[in-house]
Amino acid sequence: VAGGTTARPGEFDLIARYFAPLARGEAGALGLMDDAAVLAVPPGRGLVVTTDTLVAGIHFPADTAPEDVAAKLLRVNLSDLAAMGAEPRAYFLNAAWPTSLGEDWIARFARGLAEDQAHFAIALAGGDTVATPGPLTLTATALGWIEQGRELRRGGARAGDAVWVSGCIGDGLLGLMAARGELATDRDYLIGRLNRPTPRLALGRMLALEGLATAAADVSDGLVADLGHVCEASGLGAEIALDRLPLSDAARTALEHRPALRAALATGGDDYELVFTTAAEAAPAVRALAEDLDLPLTEIGRMAEGPARVRVLDASGADATPERGGFRHF
Amino acid sequence: VAGGTTARPGEFDLIARYFAPLARGEAGALGLMDDAAVLAVPPGRGLVVTTDTLVAGIHFPADTAPEDVAAKLLRVNLSDLAAMGAEPRAYFLNAAWPTSLGEDWIARFARGLAEDQAHFAIALAGGDTVATPGPLTLTATALGWIEQGRELRRGGARAGDAVWVSGCIGDGLLGLMAARGELATDRDYLIGRLNRPTPRLALGRMLALEGLATAAADVSDGLVADLGHVCEASGLGAEIALDRLPLSDAARTALEHRPALRAALATGGDDYELVFTTAAEAAPAVRALAEDLDLPLTEIGRMAEGPARVRVLDASGADATPERGGFRHF
Repeated sequence: VAGGTTARPGEFDLIARYFAPLARGEAGALGLMDDAAVLAVPPGRGLVVTTDTLVAGIHFPADTAPEDVAAKLLRVNLSDLAAMGAEPRAYFLNAAWPTSLGEDWIARFARGLAEDQAHFAIALAGGDTVATPGPLTLTATALGWIEQGRELRRGGARAGDAVWVSGCIGDGLLGLMAARGELATDRDYLIGRLNRPTPRLALGRMLALEGLATAAADVSDGLVADLGHVCEASGLGAEIALDRLPLSDAARTALEHRPALRAALATGGDDYELVFTTAAEAAPAVRALAEDLDLPLTEIGRMAEGPARVRVLDASGADATPERGGFRHF
Repeated sequence: VAGGTTARPGEFDLIARYFAPLARGEAGALGLMDDAAVLAVPPGRGLVVTTDTLVAGIHFPADTAPEDVAAKLLRVNLSDLAAMGAEPRAYFLNAAWPTSLGEDWIARFARGLAEDQAHFAIALAGGDTVATPGPLTLTATALGWIEQGRELRRGGARAGDAVWVSGCIGDGLLGLMAARGELATDRDYLIGRLNRPTPRLALGRMLALEGLATAAADVSDGLVADLGHVCEASGLGAEIALDRLPLSDAARTALEHRPALRAALATGGDDYELVFTTAAEAAPAVRALAEDLDLPLTEIGRMAEGPARVRVLDASGADATPERGGFRHF
């Protein structure tokens, strides 16, 4: 064909070798051999869909292990499903491979997807792979189900509601600093938290099914930014106490050396915890849930009438709100 | 934050200004303000999902008008839904913008999406936008519904079935040649066919609902390649007659000057017509459907027992199968 170039040689082979096996558990994927996937939605369930794009060198260091890139790609999407209270079902993968990327990288990436999808009981249902002269660009689109009308939204918080977060806050930022060689303590733990966040799926499900949370979001842009989204959607302000933020042992160690970092932990991204609001009187139920799930759930503040923004207060009650409301990229 | 850079300034503004309006018609998009979209699937319907990634300079010339890029991005996905017989409902957009891309480009792109989504009665339901140091990389994921169990698949063809194609074949390749300055006749028509293919949604719906087609695929990689996928999935061979391929007036004119191009039209990509198979005795019903839809449907060959490949026969019955089975990229 005059001037035409063929499809990247081996594209169909790559799919057959590395990606079709990831679709074996999902009949609706039609073996990745058809024009689209066909999925049956269980009766009484709503469909929840989220999608995230990661660019090498922007959203993860270009030298991140392929298995970790795979895990992060899946988990940032699953974290969004968790924030809605959804049960994950399947995902779609769009990969733009740089021509320089070796088959070994792709093989390891697919192996990482295989391990992680097994862990989360989901399967590949479709996608697209293309070549790019630019950086590795990966999109995953995750689908899940939610009992109709039970999804957690950002807009349901009420004045007086308590603000809670799961797990520990700030490890994502410290992990990024560790990956860049800017932090020497607890490197493996912190980089692990950055590369393999834990989507809080069980928590999201329980909050949705028990009707405990009035609003929820996942902490991807940073606690202050994501709670800020809840504020905007709910038309309320929030006050949180800096010294109530739940910190990992690694974060405490880092703060011993650099106490000035404390406020930054509230704006660092990539924690993939859930921030949620409940009626104030629901505290005992939330504490019982924390025990059931063996996951720390910490009350860090209150929703209040006022401008839709987050105020961070220090131990003396003074305003310690960092100027920057969150960051996303490297 | 030490070493951290903020999210691309204006990212949230871009979404609010250009993309949130595209989601107004879809309540499940939650205003693009939540962690995920929540869609209700009608009872008795299956969910059909397809996704395609387009890279500037690979899948479309980098200087293509933004409105045309928008239309193509939507339409290549809608064509996949058409090939399954699905009714389109919503789409998700993942955009990786080069930092050099001006806001004007994005504004025009969004305007193109607005026009095309209105034409096809769909709406934006979610997505992600990021910055990239590489080329503009766009992913759309389209969702549709299909009456349960009625979807058209590639694997259902039977020996003796007739092979049909809709519309005209080869305009995609000729449009590409025209866009490159390699063809001087009917440039506007042909480039229009390349940039704004017509997804055969009504045809796909009718084929599915009337149970007429035994297998179907859309012609994106090229007729020979896509019919080849039907062959593989159905475990059959196919023979098609080169002189039966339906050609546009523009293609006939091009062939007058360059008759050697004829076989290439069968392997050129980007036609976005449907190729489908029916029982031989269904020909009158297919012809009636062509009249109802005011869309040419042309019988071009037969499915047969044998190796899963497509043989192209010339007017004398000799094998004229082009060596290359299809191409996708620029």
